[in-house]
Amino acid sequence: MARIITLTTDFGLRDPYQGAMKGAILSINPEARLIDITHLIAPGNILEGAFVMLESCGFFPRGAIHLGVIDPGVGGERRPVLIETEDYIFVGPDNGLFSLVAAQEKVRRVIHLTKKEYFRSEVSSTFHGRDIFGPVAAHLSLGADPGTFGEEVGSFNEAALPLPKKSGRAIRGEVVYIDSFGNLITNISKADAVNLSSLIEAEVNGITIKGLKKTYCDVKKGSLVMLISSSGLLEVAVSSGKASARLKAKVGDKVLLRPSKR
Amino acid sequence: MARIITLTTDFGLRDPYQGAMKGAILSINPEARLIDITHLIAPGNILEGAFVMLESCGFFPRGAIHLGVIDPGVGGERRPVLIETEDYIFVGPDNGLFSLVAAQEKVRRVIHLTKKEYFRSEVSSTFHGRDIFGPVAAHLSLGADPGTFGEEVGSFNEAALPLPKKSGRAIRGEVVYIDSFGNLITNISKADAVNLSSLIEAEVNGITIKGLKKTYCDVKKGSLVMLISSSGLLEVAVSSGKASARLKAKVGDKVLLRPSKR
Amino acid sequence: MARIITLTTDFGLRDPYQGAMKGAILSINPEARLIDITHLIAPGNILEGAFVMLESCGFFPRGAIHLGVIDPGVGGERRPVLIETEDYIFVGPDNGLFSLVAAQEKVRRVIHLTKKEYFRSEVSSTFHGRDIFGPVAAHLSLGADPGTFGEEVGSFNEAALPLPKKSGRAIRGEVVYIDSFGNLITNISKADAVNLSSLIEAEVNGITIKGLKKTYCDVKKGSLVMLISSSGLLEVAVSSGKASARLKAKVGDKVLLRPSKR
Repeated sequence: MARIITLTTDFGLRDPYQGAMKGAILSINPEARLIDITHLIAPGNILEGAFVMLESCGFFPRGAIHLGVIDPGVGGERRPVLIETEDYIFVGPDNGLFSLVAAQEKVRRVIHLTKKEYFRSEVSSTFHGRDIFGPVAAHLSLGADPGTFGEEVGSFNEAALPLPKKSGRAIRGEVVYIDSFGNLITNISKADAVNLSSLIEAEVNGITIKGLKKTYCDVKKGSLVMLISSSGLLEVAVSSGKASARLKAKVGDKVLLRPSKR
Repeated sequence: MARIITLTTDFGLRDPYQGAMKGAILSINPEARLIDITHLIAPGNILEGAFVMLESCGFFPRGAIHLGVIDPGVGGERRPVLIETEDYIFVGPDNGLFSLVAAQEKVRRVIHLTKKEYFRSEVSSTFHGRDIFGPVAAHLSLGADPGTFGEEVGSFNEAALPLPKKSGRAIRGEVVYIDSFGNLITNISKADAVNLSSLIEAEVNGITIKGLKKTYCDVKKGSLVMLISSSGLLEVAVSSGKASARLKAKVGDKVLLRPSKR
Repeated sequence: MARIITLTTDFGLRDPYQGAMKGAILSINPEARLIDITHLIAPGNILEGAFVMLESCGFFPRGAIHLGVIDPGVGGERRPVLIETEDYIFVGPDNGLFSLVAAQEKVRRVIHLTKKEYFRSEVSSTFHGRDIFGPVAAHLSLGADPGTFGEEVGSFNEAALPLPKKSGRAIRGEVVYIDSFGNLITNISKADAVNLSSLIEAEVNGITIKGLKKTYCDVKKGSLVMLISSSGLLEVAVSSGKASARLKAKVGDKVLLRPSKR
């Protein structure tokens, strides 16, 4: 069956690991359609993986299987799980990786993966992507029922994004992701920003950016610009430049959004 | 329909953007065959994107749809277009990105993409790859006629490569692309080089390279070598080394090709 | 025919080369299923390519065609070959690239690729991935018999990994690969390690790591740990860190494994 399996990992693109995992999947279902989301999540950075899955998985058609393997605790106590939602099945370690994307979905069942007959015959201690998660995704892509793979459990690990806080007439948020264009994505939503005032300004690392624009082109090349990102979050960018370098910003830096003084 | 859609973007490989675009395409045509050309064009570098499309798109079978999104003016005044040629359909922003590759093809129609019913229901101001170009490519891959997506317009943006100039018995060209092996690709064609003389030499940043060779192995390891690139352009390389580092060369550096003094 | 062709090259991910090769394959067999293993082998590093193919190709289903192009001698004297084994067909330059992976397989035939009718009509001197190896892989994926492409030859280039040496009660090996997590993979096998003693220690660049663990989680975050890698080789890692940086290690560095003093 030519079902879609998306791949989000921190395996990198030069090592044999993602190739081996693809092979393990295709040796169970040679017709599975593998779609790379990314293999360049920073090693072991679960929050970054969760954010990337949040911003990409939901655009896929119903029935897609989303395999996510950012798994610094591989071989340790975190549970291997699958999360069945109304639209998708997520497969990977239960360490918070699916917390953001599954919060957008209607969750039906969470299954603790324990049935070894669906794993590779030898399971290594360090590579469950190839030995457990890939094979389970492959069997799911052949139509296996999620309940086949283990017992239902009540919940999954929810390690959500930090939430922004109201502070008088202002909102205190933070940078939650910096993309490779150097754009700063914050945890302040479009609704937060629009409710605040029609004239707002943001302060990041001592620099103030005035006014909410619609596109990067609404300011001169090289100027700072504040807008709503394609994913609906407040974003600070530099038109044709890198806001991360200009503002010396990193993930976790505070963002203060407030009505503009004028 | 399992039609081929190639992808050339500057979205990078660690962000959710190319995954989201793939999802948007597959949610319209789950059977589309997505082939990554690259997502690592330098951010906003239209000429680099144009060169990479020139050197790769033409090798695909007839009927392929080539999606190109290097779009620093997203949300601004550049037109979203599709260009139908005898062999292919190109989809993306009309900012010069298709100028080189379409110049190699018999152009049939250029369509300004205006029919919103083929876009995603909400079009962001900053991500037309996911919201306009991907969906249009997906509908094309299902067999939609190019005329469906908007009005025909007379022309597309042609921002061609700089042309080399004759100068006495010499040719003055420049470096137009540096690949990741550090090879310098120039805008001087095989015909230019061969017409000049059977014994030629090139000067780049004050260094002279004598004689046109056939392969990297025709000189000692570590030596400079001049040859015709796989795409038919004059190339300066170092056998098993990096010409870009050796010659401190960058895109735009002048290359003087002349009959050899002896 | 929707046969799997895997791709392992040093073409990089930003240049047009891997896209052009994919196009050349698909223009012969539009239904071939292209699976990227990696395009980021260090330029010209045959041993690295051989190691990555060893650790990934064998996980694919029988019948897969493995295309490998790390080809610093392109256009020179190395032979273009295909190696048919019981499970797979390998296609690429005969420069040692297939030495490790083919040693794991039952080799049936080695064919010197000479029949030009299966190459691209114009073969460049510098890009046989696009002009020879890709097209041959494409014809194989359509079901062509390996014998079609040239004469059988007796052997292929075997440039194996360095072997570890016994030295009294110790084993002297070396680092053969460093992955992007900074883990050091050695040429010492699980059997070597286990035969030595139940209590072993490794010395790398003057630092001693005591005891063989099962997972990265068996030591504190930030500690050095020695374990058996997912591919069955002795590995030195830092839990949630980079052993390569901690030990200032590079490929070729010596690893001394010995019974623990206590």
